[in-house]
Amino acid sequence: MKYNDREVPEVVIKRLSRYYRYLGEYLNEGVERISSGKLSERMKVTASQIRQDFNYFGGFGQQGYGYNVEYVYNEIANILGLKDGYRAVIIGAGHLGLALANHESFKKRGFDIMALFDNDKDKIGNVVNSKPILDVADIENFIKKNDISIAIMTLPKVRVNDIASKLVDWGIKGIWNFTSAEIVTEKPVAVENVHMSDSLMTLSCKIKQGD
Amino acid sequence: MKYNDREVPEVVIKRLSRYYRYLGEYLNEGVERISSGKLSERMKVTASQIRQDFNYFGGFGQQGYGYNVEYVYNEIANILGLKDGYRAVIIGAGHLGLALANHESFKKRGFDIMALFDNDKDKIGNVVNSKPILDVADIENFIKKNDISIAIMTLPKVRVNDIASKLVDWGIKGIWNFTSAEIVTEKPVAVENVHMSDSLMTLSCKIKQGD
Repeated sequence: MKYNDREVPEVVIKRLSRYYRYLGEYLNEGVERISSGKLSERMKVTASQIRQDFNYFGGFGQQGYGYNVEYVYNEIANILGLKDGYRAVIIGAGHLGLALANHESFKKRGFDIMALFDNDKDKIGNVVNSKPILDVADIENFIKKNDISIAIMTLPKVRVNDIASKLVDWGIKGIWNFTSAEIVTEKPVAVENVHMSDSLMTLSCKIKQGD
Repeated sequence: MKYNDREVPEVVIKRLSRYYRYLGEYLNEGVERISSGKLSERMKVTASQIRQDFNYFGGFGQQGYGYNVEYVYNEIANILGLKDGYRAVIIGAGHLGLALANHESFKKRGFDIMALFDNDKDKIGNVVNSKPILDVADIENFIKKNDISIAIMTLPKVRVNDIASKLVDWGIKGIWNFTSAEIVTEKPVAVENVHMSDSLMTLSCKIKQGD
């Protein structure tokens, strides 16, 4: 990913989401200014790492007495695209799809899950956390009419790439992929993969190596 | 985390899991040796990054003609603790808990989910993907008797830290935390947090900044 023509490593983007979360906590606590040292203690990254990360985005104007929490929070929200608000659909109303439909923090971040799609007649017509489960045959129409930008993939792996390219044609700008399939599309699309096994192996490594 | 007394950044550990996955693919394809250049193309990280990461673990002996796939695969498995095999329980049999219980790739990696626990009488006694849902009141006994090392936290956030310290006392060595609660325990324990919102914000950033 590039910001102002400068390549930003993916790991910095991931930390940006974390900074946003932690700054939100400070904001809730009524903290107005925060030093990189204090932020570093809470987040368990070094202060120099924080300054280095922030420098990809112009540094967020740290003064001698620290960062302005609200300013940096808003700037990061803007970089992350959270100010724009995105509408999403979940494709695959299995357990994981239902769990994501019930996740309360996405809405707060500006992500609105509008519906789930499935091909199981027993599920179609049900409502989960105020979101309808619709027939996957109607997905093109729904995406186009409701200005949907994000597709959340919780369908069986083998069916992912039957639909991925079509989704992009219909207007999807980002795919949040929970399957182990690698997303292959004709036109470019933003993809974020969630590899559960990688996370579990990381835990295993921490256990094995004594954290 | 430290390896041979040298601090290894968390991001390197995360990439180690990815290397392991990709090397497993090469192994399945019958590839015996692989250059960092070829691996770099498939994984979309630079070859120098790969060499730098591997150097934390002694370099895995690249020859002029590349890495021995099986050797590196096995070495990484060992570092990740996958050779040891871990038994896990899921605490909280909601949608996410059920989705994880149905996830087929954990077993393959050496993680054996033995049971789910819940306090809902309607769920207790059910079986999910051959794993029983048991009464959370019986968890101490189960962990001790079955040599359980990993607790997967999919229970409501507010109840996480009522149980976390007890789990460690009963023998849990690692907590895989899907809640937004920060794990606080008296004795040290390995923790891996899965922050769904961070991942979604990363996707949002890729959309906003044009990937």
